Amino acid sequence: MHQAQPEDSGELFQIARSALIDYLASLKLADREVAVQRLVEQLKIEGGDTEILSQSVTTTAERAALINGFQGHYLDYDDVQPNFRGHPSVTIFSALFAIAAPTDQIEDLLWAYIQGVEVAGQFGRLLNPHHAVSGWHSTATIGSIASAAAISIFKRLSVENTVAILSVAASQTAGMLFQAGTDNKPLHAGLAARNAVTAYQIVQAGLTTSEDPFNNRNGWFKVIGDLEVNATNWRQTWLKPAQIQTPGLWFKQHQFCSAAISGYDAAVDLWQKGIQWKDCQKIVIHYPQNGDRVLNQPRPQTGQQGKFSIEYIVWQVLNHGDVDDQKFAALPIESQFYTDIEIFSRTNDLPQGSVTSRPARLEVFVNGASIVSEVDDPLGSPANPLPQEKIIDKLQRAIGAQSAQVEKIVRSTNQTVSQLVEAIK
Amino acid sequence: MHQAQPEDSGELFQIARSALIDYLASLKLADREVAVQRLVEQLKIEGGDTEILSQSVTTTAERAALINGFQGHYLDYDDVQPNFRGHPSVTIFSALFAIAAPTDQIEDLLWAYIQGVEVAGQFGRLLNPHHAVSGWHSTATIGSIASAAAISIFKRLSVENTVAILSVAASQTAGMLFQAGTDNKPLHAGLAARNAVTAYQIVQAGLTTSEDPFNNRNGWFKVIGDLEVNATNWRQTWLKPAQIQTPGLWFKQHQFCSAAISGYDAAVDLWQKGIQWKDCQKIVIHYPQNGDRVLNQPRPQTGQQGKFSIEYIVWQVLNHGDVDDQKFAALPIESQFYTDIEIFSRTNDLPQGSVTSRPARLEVFVNGASIVSEVDDPLGSPANPLPQEKIIDKLQRAIGAQSAQVEKIVRSTNQTVSQLVEAIK
Repeated sequence: MHQAQPEDSGELFQIARSALIDYLASLKLADREVAVQRLVEQLKIEGGDTEILSQSVTTTAERAALINGFQGHYLDYDDVQPNFRGHPSVTIFSALFAIAAPTDQIEDLLWAYIQGVEVAGQFGRLLNPHHAVSGWHSTATIGSIASAAAISIFKRLSVENTVAILSVAASQTAGMLFQAGTDNKPLHAGLAARNAVTAYQIVQAGLTTSEDPFNNRNGWFKVIGDLEVNATNWRQTWLKPAQIQTPGLWFKQHQFCSAAISGYDAAVDLWQKGIQWKDCQKIVIHYPQNGDRVLNQPRPQTGQQGKFSIEYIVWQVLNHGDVDDQKFAALPIESQFYTDIEIFSRTNDLPQGSVTSRPARLEVFVNGASIVSEVDDPLGSPANPLPQEKIIDKLQRAIGAQSAQVEKIVRSTNQTVSQLVEAIK
Repeated sequence: MHQAQPEDSGELFQIARSALIDYLASLKLADREVAVQRLVEQLKIEGGDTEILSQSVTTTAERAALINGFQGHYLDYDDVQPNFRGHPSVTIFSALFAIAAPTDQIEDLLWAYIQGVEVAGQFGRLLNPHHAVSGWHSTATIGSIASAAAISIFKRLSVENTVAILSVAASQTAGMLFQAGTDNKPLHAGLAARNAVTAYQIVQAGLTTSEDPFNNRNGWFKVIGDLEVNATNWRQTWLKPAQIQTPGLWFKQHQFCSAAISGYDAAVDLWQKGIQWKDCQKIVIHYPQNGDRVLNQPRPQTGQQGKFSIEYIVWQVLNHGDVDDQKFAALPIESQFYTDIEIFSRTNDLPQGSVTSRPARLEVFVNGASIVSEVDDPLGSPANPLPQEKIIDKLQRAIGAQSAQVEKIVRSTNQTVSQLVEAIK
């Protein structure tokens, strides 16, 4: 992994800079959440050696990574990578900031991040869809190894120590999707970042670990996915093209699960065509097989569970023209919803899309007639990217006038971690 | 789990007290190991809020659990439970001591430990042998949940918070057997203890987590073992008989993997019958299918790897009448071994034993004749228990004259954690 930056790395850095801005925005917007504040209160250490991003207290490096990851993913507002089937920026940046020195260059952090995403995407491409479909949460599992890989680049570890940090990280890869809709789901991003920091500490202590953690006999891929891998394939495809570029990243404009975005776009389309909830007699939501697997909350009790409910999202849009991100907080949902949702049904009859597309078809019945909207590449997906100004907009909503300064630091080529950390305080 | 102690709990406590003595002995004997000292140096915190067992420095609770677990399992000298297929005492006691208050009663810690072993054994009975055979390290996976269960009993958590701590622990259950023979294997015991402490911290912070982590649709057993479980079975078998009693615990008299003990006993038997290495032309080691799976080091490079090498162990015994525990340190093995071992072969032709037996047959060829020794229930296994004095002996070797005082505290009914921690310093 320790190769020089490719000549055409300009675009990769451009995407990475947007991802960092989006990460900081998602993190800052969750600053004052009750659950975040409780965790900070629980894990802060007076005079600890590591600053927690965007919080005014200190702790240990592994606790800082845990809090950064939890907070950055708390709103489910952060980016997604299709091969990974997980959230790369929150896990990788959360680990990197926890072990970065104030004088480290942002540029080096971004290069480490790009390669962390490469590991996430390459591992995900090998293991998915089986890994995610069988119930593992890639953000937590693969995310631990990807974050450790990023640390190894950032800290310029030797080849031997790079193998060691990946091996120790592989011994900590856990987390399952049954936690969706609870605080434990964002916690998975924090645990992945923590695991990578722990792996770094273990390597610093010089402990020995298996030098062949990805062997095809009893190695990590074999045990977790019954999969044999070929390292030659890796060398040939590494950053050619980069996973951060192709299939690329999804950026979100709302605080719900990315699996729901196509259905959301279809609902907005219908609203714009004049369809309103009061006129709907029946609504059928069509997905490919497993296309709605993570949307496991047909009857959410709280807004937080509603992040994983396509019914709750479509219901909001057809009532008000859009979702209100406030309505995805950990608060009870208004009771009218439970009466209304009787008209919803789901079916899994669409063909599978490509790795980047997420097909969803919304079929509403008004006055006995069926009206259909289908979306394959929703706004924010790699084929239909969220405009830059929408990402900047997120940062502005998070930190107001200070956002121009933060953006400038992220987009410069000679700024340090401490300059960025100061600017987002 | 929060039931009153059964009337016949006397024997359970007696076993638990022996397990605690054995744990403290295993821990103390690894006190000055280079790897242990490096980890302590890496993770100590000046003025930290938690004492590390048997070390003179402090740190955070989760780091203390990590170090206790690593150190306690470092020599692979600690006990084993057959259904669990892992090391119960090191994971559970390491977590409990990290979160115990100085004034807490040893008696309460033992009761929590007994129920932690119950979880380990019950979960292991359901998942094994498949779980271990497919490459997972039960000490690390199931051990995280078992340690969290023990914390929930010890801290008298509500039913709601007991479910929560098990759920958060389930999100951290990782670790695979490819790490056998490296420092990462004892690290697994530490990671399991750390995961339980993290789960406790998360529950203290009041974060939400899935209330149904063991459901049969996408729950923990389903994802990690493709297994459906029936909670009614649990209620009927809970502590009837206790897992700590039946199938019980293995205690070790030497510092190598428990899978090798039968082969070791067979070698000692042959030595006592007058067989010596210089007379052996060929040695065939017979096991049931998978009986030697963890003994994955036919050509170990270091004594530490030799803990998982039946060849290295038999070679020592037939040369010197016994193994020398010093020869299992992380140092190169004498070169003569590599010339000698050409006469070894293994075969998997024995029938499977019961859950507590570990059949191994040693067949040596001397002057063209085959001489055989077979052991099913080696010394230290539940059917052939290690005498109490051998466990006390371990503690004496670890802490000398102070051992009588430690034994007295462990065997008393009204002593506190701080009295014990002081006594083993």
